This record gives sequence, C-alpha cells and structure tokens, in this order.
Amino acid sequence: MKKQLLPNFPPGPLDRYRNLASFDWRKLKLFIEPAEIVEFKNEIVELLKGNPAFHPKKLETLDDVRRDASLQMHEGFYLQEFKYLGMLDNLRKVPAFGEIAVWSNPSVSVKNALNNSMYPSVIRALGTEKHLDLIEKVWQGEHFGCFCLTEIGHGTDTKRMRTRATYDKESKGFIMHTPDFEAAKCWAGLLGQTATHAIVYAQLYTPDGTCHGLHQFVVQIRDVKTMQPLPGITVGDMGPKIGLNGIDNGFLIFNNFHVSRDALLNKNADVNEEGVYVTPFKDANKRFGASLAALSDGRINITNLCNAYLIQGLTIAVRYAAVRKQFGPDGNEIPILEYQTHQHRLLPYLAGAFTFKFFSLHVCLEQHTTFVNNLNGKQREDAVEYGFEMHGISSACKPVISWFMMEALNEFRQACAGHGYLKAAGIGDLRNDADANCTYEGENHVLNQQTSNWLLKFWPQILEGKIIKGPMESIDYLSHGKEILADKFAVDSVEHIIRPEYILRMYKWLVVYLLKSSYEKYERSLKEGNDAFWAKNNNQVYYARSLSVAYLNHYMLHIFLKRINETEDPKVRNVLERLFALYGLFTLERSLGHLYQGGFFVGEKPATLVQDAVLKLCGDLKNDAVSLIDCIAADDFLIKSFMGKSDGKVYEHLQNELMGGEGNMSRPNWWKEVLHWGKQSKL
Amino acid sequence: MKKQLLPNFPPGPLDRYRNLASFDWRKLKLFIEPAEIVEFKNEIVELLKGNPAFHPKKLETLDDVRRDASLQMHEGFYLQEFKYLGMLDNLRKVPAFGEIAVWSNPSVSVKNALNNSMYPSVIRALGTEKHLDLIEKVWQGEHFGCFCLTEIGHGTDTKRMRTRATYDKESKGFIMHTPDFEAAKCWAGLLGQTATHAIVYAQLYTPDGTCHGLHQFVVQIRDVKTMQPLPGITVGDMGPKIGLNGIDNGFLIFNNFHVSRDALLNKNADVNEEGVYVTPFKDANKRFGASLAALSDGRINITNLCNAYLIQGLTIAVRYAAVRKQFGPDGNEIPILEYQTHQHRLLPYLAGAFTFKFFSLHVCLEQHTTFVNNLNGKQREDAVEYGFEMHGISSACKPVISWFMMEALNEFRQACAGHGYLKAAGIGDLRNDADANCTYEGENHVLNQQTSNWLLKFWPQILEGKIIKGPMESIDYLSHGKEILADKFAVDSVEHIIRPEYILRMYKWLVVYLLKSSYEKYERSLKEGNDAFWAKNNNQVYYARSLSVAYLNHYMLHIFLKRINETEDPKVRNVLERLFALYGLFTLERSLGHLYQGGFFVGEKPATLVQDAVLKLCGDLKNDAVSLIDCIAADDFLIKSFMGKSDGKVYEHLQNELMGGEGNMSRPNWWKEVLHWGKQSKL
Repeated sequence: MKKQLLPNFPPGPLDRYRNLASFDWRKLKLFIEPAEIVEFKNEIVELLKGNPAFHPKKLETLDDVRRDASLQMHEGFYLQEFKYLGMLDNLRKVPAFGEIAVWSNPSVSVKNALNNSMYPSVIRALGTEKHLDLIEKVWQGEHFGCFCLTEIGHGTDTKRMRTRATYDKESKGFIMHTPDFEAAKCWAGLLGQTATHAIVYAQLYTPDGTCHGLHQFVVQIRDVKTMQPLPGITVGDMGPKIGLNGIDNGFLIFNNFHVSRDALLNKNADVNEEGVYVTPFKDANKRFGASLAALSDGRINITNLCNAYLIQGLTIAVRYAAVRKQFGPDGNEIPILEYQTHQHRLLPYLAGAFTFKFFSLHVCLEQHTTFVNNLNGKQREDAVEYGFEMHGISSACKPVISWFMMEALNEFRQACAGHGYLKAAGIGDLRNDADANCTYEGENHVLNQQTSNWLLKFWPQILEGKIIKGPMESIDYLSHGKEILADKFAVDSVEHIIRPEYILRMYKWLVVYLLKSSYEKYERSLKEGNDAFWAKNNNQVYYARSLSVAYLNHYMLHIFLKRINETEDPKVRNVLERLFALYGLFTLERSLGHLYQGGFFVGEKPATLVQDAVLKLCGDLKNDAVSLIDCIAADDFLIKSFMGKSDGKVYEHLQNELMGGEGNMSRPNWWKEVLHWGKQSKL
Repeated sequence: MKKQLLPNFPPGPLDRYRNLASFDWRKLKLFIEPAEIVEFKNEIVELLKGNPAFHPKKLETLDDVRRDASLQMHEGFYLQEFKYLGMLDNLRKVPAFGEIAVWSNPSVSVKNALNNSMYPSVIRALGTEKHLDLIEKVWQGEHFGCFCLTEIGHGTDTKRMRTRATYDKESKGFIMHTPDFEAAKCWAGLLGQTATHAIVYAQLYTPDGTCHGLHQFVVQIRDVKTMQPLPGITVGDMGPKIGLNGIDNGFLIFNNFHVSRDALLNKNADVNEEGVYVTPFKDANKRFGASLAALSDGRINITNLCNAYLIQGLTIAVRYAAVRKQFGPDGNEIPILEYQTHQHRLLPYLAGAFTFKFFSLHVCLEQHTTFVNNLNGKQREDAVEYGFEMHGISSACKPVISWFMMEALNEFRQACAGHGYLKAAGIGDLRNDADANCTYEGENHVLNQQTSNWLLKFWPQILEGKIIKGPMESIDYLSHGKEILADKFAVDSVEHIIRPEYILRMYKWLVVYLLKSSYEKYERSLKEGNDAFWAKNNNQVYYARSLSVAYLNHYMLHIFLKRINETEDPKVRNVLERLFALYGLFTLERSLGHLYQGGFFVGEKPATLVQDAVLKLCGDLKNDAVSLIDCIAADDFLIKSFMGKSDGKVYEHLQNELMGGEGNMSRPNWWKEVLHWGKQSKL
C-alpha cells in the first residue's frame, strides 16, 4: 500500500546520493504531510495528466499563452469544485492544492484564485442578501469577476484612490467616474480580456457633496453575450509582463457610467434612496479597516505559494548539482554538489524550504480553520489578539519568504550555469513568475513596517515588566525581554552552537536588541524635532526592517522545532535538526553586525563558530540533499525542466530537448537574408 | 557649441530635482568622458535613429527576434566598420561603442563581437599566413564565424573537452569526431543558424595514438551558398533562452568529419604531412595557456557592458522614483525618492555605477592600449607582471560587477513595484539579458578563485617584508601588510568616516586580514591532512572569495579617488566624493562580520557610524540623483522604458503604451471560448 503511495524513483545517476541518504525518505515525507494529503496530491496530478488542457505546449505568442491559460482556468475550475468539499473536510488540502496549482501553471493558479475565490469571497463578506445571486453566476460560468483596487497613480496608499461613485437622486443610482488616466483602475487580473464584472473601490459621494471614503461596488463592465465593453466603460489589457503572462491584467476607465443603487456592497454602509449615507460604524477609518480585512488571507496563502516556487527551483538546482560533474581530485571528476562553495549556494535554501514548509502548513491550517469556523458562526474567543498577531506574522512572512525565494532563484540560475540559462531549464520562467510575489498583496517594504510598528509597541511593556502573550506564541518570550537582553554568547564549539535551543536563544537576543534599538532610535528622532512621519520612515533601514525579519525568522524556527519534537524516528529528527540549524545560522550570519554591535558577540570566536557551523552543516547535509528534495519535489509531470526530473538523466533529456525542438535543426526561412547581406544593406 | 553637444533636457516632472542639484551636470559629464567621446556617442545614436533596422519593433516569436537581430548585426557591421579606424585613433571610443551597443540591443552586441571581432582575432592570434584569407571573407560578408569551446558535459574544465581531431596520413587531414552527445560543442553564438565556419577546440591525436591536448581548428560547417550543414555535420539551434534570444546559440556534432591539414590554427603547434607533431613549446600546459590568453580580454570588456546594463536599470528606477508619489507628511504626497528606505534601495547602486565607470574606463584604456601596442610590435617592458596583475583584476572584476549589477536589477524591479513588472518598463528584459554575464567568459565563483589564488601567494612575501609592486597599482600597499594589520578603527564621527582616505584605509585592513586568515585556513587544512585540492576548495566561502571581492573593491575605489583628485570643480568633486564614500561604506557594511572578527571594529560605535554614514550619504545624494543619472544615461532613443525617459512623463508614456498596444483594447479572437465554457469542458 505504502509502496504504491510512494513508489521508488526511476533508477539513474541520482542513485548515488539516494543510496547515501542518512534517513528513510518515505518516513520524512509522511511526517511532513500525512498519507491522506499525499494521496490527495497524487490524485490531482493524475487528473492533470489525464486532461490534455494541462499538458505542456509550445506557446510562442502572448495570445497563445492567454488562450491556453483561460482554457486551463475553465478546466481547473471543475477540478477545484470537484475537490472543494473534500478540502473543507481536511483543511490541510488547501495549501496542498495551492502548491500543485503553482507547479502546474502559476498564471492559472492566480486566475482561478481571483475568479473563483476572491471575487465571490469579497461579495459574501461585504455584500448582502441581494448580492448572493452574483456569486451563483460565477459558479455557473455566466459571469467572470475581477477585483479593482489599485489605480495607475496609487497602489500602496489605498486611501488616495480617486475613482468616484456619486449618488444621483434622480436615477437612484451611482455615477461611476474616473477623473483622469492616473485614476484608472489597473492591474486587476482577468480585467484585461475575461471579466464581465468588477468589484470596484471608489470614493463614495452623496448628493450633498460629502465624500464618505472608499467603498466597494460590483459593476458590470462587459456585455455577457458579446464580451464587448458597455458604453461608458473603457477597458483594456496591460499587455506583456515580465512573467505571469497567462493573466490578463487590465485597466478600467469610467466615463460617467451609471449603475444602480444595488451596485454598492452594503453590509457595512449604504446610501438610501434619498441619498443619505447610513452606516453602523461611526468612524470611517474603522469601517475602512473592517472592509480591508477581507484581503488579509492573501499573504498567508502567498507564503505557501512562494515556497512552491522555491521548491521547484531547488529540485532543479539540487538534482542538477548531483549529476553534473566538473573537476575533481586525482583526475577523477566529481559532482559539483561535492564542492563546499556549491553546497553553500544551494543547501541553506533547501533548509529554508523545510523551515517555510512547516511554518506555512502551521499558519495556513490555523488561518483556514479560523476562517471556516467564522463562516459557521464560531468566532474564536481570542479573535482580536489573534487578528493582531496574525497581521504581524503575515505582514512579515510574505516579505521574508518572497525575498528569500527570489534570492534563491537568482542563485540557482547561476548555480546551473550555462545550461541553466536555457528556457528549457525552467529557472527563468520560474523567476519571472515568482517575482510578482514581492509586489502584489502589499509591497514588501511597506508590509514589513506593519509588523515592526506593531512590535515596537511592546518595548514599553517590556520595560514595565508586563506579561506579553499571544495565541500564536510568536511574542510570548518578549515578557522576558530584559533578561534576554542581558544574555551573552556563551558556547565554544560547533556542536553546541548548532543546538536548536541555542539558535533560538541567539535569535531571541537579536529580536529584543533590535526592538530596543529601533524604539530608541525612533524616540531619539522625535526628540530631535522630527515629526512621527519622518521619525518612522528614517527608522527602517538597519533597524525596524531588521526587527521584523528577525522576529519572523525566530518564529518560523520556533514552529519548526515544535514539529521536530513530534518526530519519533531518530534519523528523521537528526536530518531535520540539521536543516533547522542551517537555516537558523545562515540567516543569523547575515546579522553578524547587529550581534557584535549589541555586544552579544565579542571577539573572533562567535562569528567563526557560526561560519564553521554553517559549512559543517552544508557538508553534513550534502549526501541527504537529493532525498530531501525527493520528499518535497513535485511529480515529474509538473517539473518543466530537463534538469529537474527524478531520474536525473539530465543529458538525455537535454538531447531530446535540443534535437526535438521545433525548428532547431532546420534553416530559418529568412536564411537568404543572411547571405550576401552586404548587397542588401541600407546604409 | 557646448549647448548643442549637451542640450537641455525636455521640461517635465524631473525639473524639481534637476533644479535642486548641487553641481553642474554638464561639467561632470564632460569630466567623465571628454567632449570628443560625447560627440562620438551622439553620432552613433544619430546613425541608429536614422536606420529603420534599429527602430523598436513588436517581435512576438523567437523567429522574429532572431531575424531582427541578424538584420541588425548586418547593418551594425557597417556601422562598426565605419567607426573602426576612428576607434583606433582614440581608444576611449572602444568602451563607448560597447556601451551604446548594449543599450541598442544586447543580443546584437554579442553577435557583432563574436563574428566581427572574436572569430577574426582568434584566427589572427593563433593562425598563420595561410589563414588570413578567412578573415577577409568575414569582412566581406561571405563567411560567418563562431567560436566552439564549451561542450555539453564540460564548460569550466576546458581541459576535459572530448571532441577529437585525429590526423589521417592517408588523406593528409584531420578526422573531426564527437564521441557522444555529452561531447557535442554547444552554446556557441551564431552556430545555431548563422555560422558557416567555426573555430573548434579539439583534442589533437597523431597517428601514433598520442593525444597532444586541446588545439584550435577552423572548420567549415555549412555550405556558404545554401546554409545547409555539410555531410558529417549535425548542427542545430539551442532554442529559447532566458534572455539574449537574438543570439542563435547552437550545438555541433561531428561524425568522422574530414578537414584538411590547414584547418589547424598552427602558429603555436602543427602536424606535418607525415603526422608528426611539431611545436616550439616544450610544455603542453604552457602552449595551452598561451593559446587561451586570447580569451582574457573578454572579462575586461564585460565589466564595461555590465555597467551599461546597470546604468540602464538605474535610469529607469531613479527617474521613476523621482516622479512617482506616494504618501507624505501633512497630507501632501511626496516622491518616493524622498523616503530613506527607497534612497537606500537605489543610491548605493548609483554610487556603484560611478565607481565602476571610472574603474572600467581606466582598465579598458590600459588593456586596449597594451593590445594595440602589441599589434604594432611594441610590447610593454613589464608585460609579465602586467599580465599577472591584469589577470587578477579581470578575474575579480567580472564577478564583483556582474553580481552587483544583478542584485541591483532585482532591487530595481521591486523598487518600481507593480508598473515595474510590465514588460514595457524594461527591467525584465534587462535582467534576463544581463544575467548571462555571471556565467559566460568564466563562471563567477571559479573566476574569483583565480584572483584569490594569485593574492594568497603574497602573504609569505608580506611576512618576509618584501616589496610588492605591480604596474596597475592594485597590490602595492601589501608591502605594508604587517603595519596595516595592526591598524584599529580610530574615528568617532560620520564626517570622519566618510573621508575617502579613511575608507581606503579600512579596506586595506580588510584585504590584509582576509589574506592572512585565508592563507592560514588553507595551511591549517593541509596540516590536518587534506590534500591541496580540498584545502583550496574548502577555503572559499567566507575566506578566499571575500578576499577577492575586497581586493577588487579597494582597487576600484583607489582608481576612483585618483580620478576625483583630477577634478577642478569643487562641486563636482564634492558629489563624486559622496558617491565614493557611499559605494565604499555600503560594500564595507557587508563585511561587518569580518571587521569585528578581526578586531578592527570593537563595540557598538564603528558599525553604527558606518550605517549612519550610509544613510546620511543617501540623504545627501537624493537631490543629485536625477542629475547624476543625466550624466551617464543613454539617449532617450535607447531607453526602452516608459519610466526612464528624460522628460519624466511616466504616466503619459504609460498611457500611450497601454492605449496604443496592439490588441490591448480589443476582444481576443478566442472570446467565444470564454463564454459558457462550462458546456465545452472536457472533464
């Protein structure tokens, strides 16, 4: 039974390392995700394999790519529906599905999420009874929905959006208007070619001329029979992008476009027929905050998706490194994975992928459970504390993980050298698609500030000796902030410094030190006469930003260690502890400056121990790397790279790629232009 | 006159910063490059503008891109010829031409360099009288040449190439043979579709079965009338790549292909008619070294090209940051360039671009002058010392500058946020094309080792108190290594730490410290029983690699300061000193660990001063950033980005881009598939 669930990998050049692994890969794989999830993923892969829409195709033009992605969205919708109830039964399936979706086609995974999840969710969250029919239409494939918040001139600063919805007493509806091109809605996925309806964020004006701030409207923008824009609507596609070209991102301009009163999603605020604004919220800011909360799930999901990108890149780079040979002692060539330099280029990122995996499974499960319970009317008692802490976690984890992923993909591209520069190696498209994760759902630097702003509030509490506690366990140790800050580096061997508890201890010191120094820098800046705006902004580099990153790294390691402690197999435990230590020390090494500045480290020894430990861990993990990849890699069907397949037959696949590439072996049809071109020159 | 040479920029949103600049941009621009070079560049740009082949086009398929690049290569060939004699008159024109070529079309610049420069140069360097006709044929456009060294299975380890050339006494020629796919020649530019001839590196076997090592052969591979491969030749294209898709990189397989004896480029070695190997070199290794020397120019040229990529990215990111507004104090929106976080994301890279510019102009001029003098029979007296030192410099500068450039382009992509993800923003293509620089002409990590291996030899000389001196001035201070190592950090203000002399002094300490600790680690490793192979390889991370980087950064700053000292204008001097300090301290900040480990820094103060200085310099430079860009940016014609034009009219250009994009405003022709797709689903 197990055998079928996790069959042997095909024999080939990777056997060398598979035979050297220190642990049983099946045990680790089933420790990461239970058999039910492995089966669920296998089942989806079989569905994809069985449907020609999901088979790889040669797509040369943007239009080809778009058409293919639309087709896949349609097919994938059924697939998701098919699985939907199953996913609610076991919420671990949600991130599992997300991972496969990214591996299958990142553009389609986004399109799917927007049309089938985000658009209906927002309507459900912010609309009322009368809007539910709109959701039905999406499920029936009659409407396609998109989400329009960003404008050409404003993205991060959402409050400054300039699209207007003015209530018109005469027609008892709203006049939607875009004052100029800079106020055009843009970037909305599906808006470019597919959407018939849009959720539009607009400044609501009542007839008395009062602006009530940003509200959400559902607006039909295209004729559902002809797909032509309605009169008064200018809608277009944003054209080719760096990546994610299957998504038709669009822009939208209203020219005094009339919609009915029902267009307003009116759960939190409404305008009555007479044009009077009514809301249960007294504070416009709070109402706005409540409505934006619907967006906060995104960041948690994105960390899971970023790890899927990272894992895909790792699979390619690690398997290639295990097969590619170059130089060697005594004239015998060795795989490049044997070189310390190369281990250091790959294995810390492998350690990251495992850290993120356990972290991400943990927070996704918590967040999705909370969400489903909410839907069922069971709000958690600690909802407020949970909300704040999860906001802090999610605002830090998207930047930390997406940056680490991009850094890794850039490193992998280079680590796969010349052949890694071929499109067929798969790393280029991966990087170009993945890149967007640093920007959408909140620009990384801006998000980081959310977390550090929240954390900075704890410093006075630490000084006052207050107990600090949160439902997610990410801040509890701050209660001991003063003792932690008094800690000094106190080990003198690599064996000691790689112990999980000691790594967490060093990280705790780093977080509290950065909390203290960021807080003090901010206060000093205020005292020097700067206003809060500038004091905050000039406190980011080296301070608040580092704080947010250190806080999140500590938290991810904390979660990782809790999971390690659930392991029963000593070999699995051993390899996970090495991964834990490698991620912990590799990231800590980047903060050597702070560790010395704050006096936790003194003299040559501490940094040397950290570095020696990182290199030792790389060496210790190199024989396990291939089997570790086997535990987290996508099915071969989803690995679009001649380098990354589980049989390791890199050169065979490359040969097929080159010899079989359409047109690779024939003269271009413009060959005559190449010859005697001198006679044709126009100069 | 000056006015015409450097006309005013068009008015627009960038005026705000242009008016705030602390210096006269024309003075700085003419200090960087004399009027003659500015005029030369303007002239080339006018030629490009006047030739429709170089005008931007919509190219959707790989075939379109290839055809366009071939056409441009042909047109550009004349352009280069036209300028060629002029370039020899003033060698500063060589890097100036290279810069424009990258800005115009990176693929074409590579194709041009391979066919018109590398192929004929190698024939001239390694061939004899009888081969000169081949060069003529290229100039006449009858032959197209490429350069085949790399094989599928071997790149960096050139000695392991497995293509064979066996002398056959009967036919008095060589039998070229590729034993298997892993020995296929690959990656050669122009080989895929264009080349009629190839320089092929093959193991030379004489009839007695002796292998004489790698030799170079000129082999015709395609019929010059039909462009079809000759019988016995399998040649194909490698298909789509991450970037540089205008280049037709190819692969080549010989099936016992017969060539005449003349195919061997026989300056350094020959096989006589009877099949006896004759060479003036006794040592096969030395002969090989002498023949490879022809490749070493490449790295120096690449640093200049990398800086062109960096400048293009900076132009886009800085001009956009000066125009894009978001948030602000007191409700007034401010350009994002006003934010310290954003300054820190861009300005250190701007400082890098200036550092690299002065460095690169210096070494290019030295190298090209030496080359031309050699051609004219005037060998420099210090040729050997020069050769070694330039090898050390060039092997470090390609890694340092290409890595910094890639890091910068990744940062710029994110710093331009959503709109930066559009293809029309120009950063994606830039990054994808630029990426190859980290790999070709020597993989960066491997190159770095060349430099550190060379540097490590100086440590015993330092200990012995020997005078160390080189013609390029990059190592002279090592003579004082012992005193330098005894130095301690000894300033206590930002004003003091930003002084150029002090930055160089800190860097000198860092280089000597890394030299000492790398040397000692290597010796320790040998004593522990490791052989030299492993001792060397396990000495790279944190040690030898950092040494090579620090050495090069110090050297670039040394050159930069020498140039600064030639400035007569105090304002120009002032802004250059800030750029110097910012690059110096920004890169030094990354070595905080080493600075503390080695005891040069102690306590909180030193690191804090470095960080405070970096932030202060960012703030001091932000009003100058736009004018600094104006001094180094490409002409608007060469800036393929709606964000980067000199008028700063970002939104106007974006609007034209979106509204004018072909097909952006129309329904896709597969629109019916979008509707009621449910009925069409195959599931």
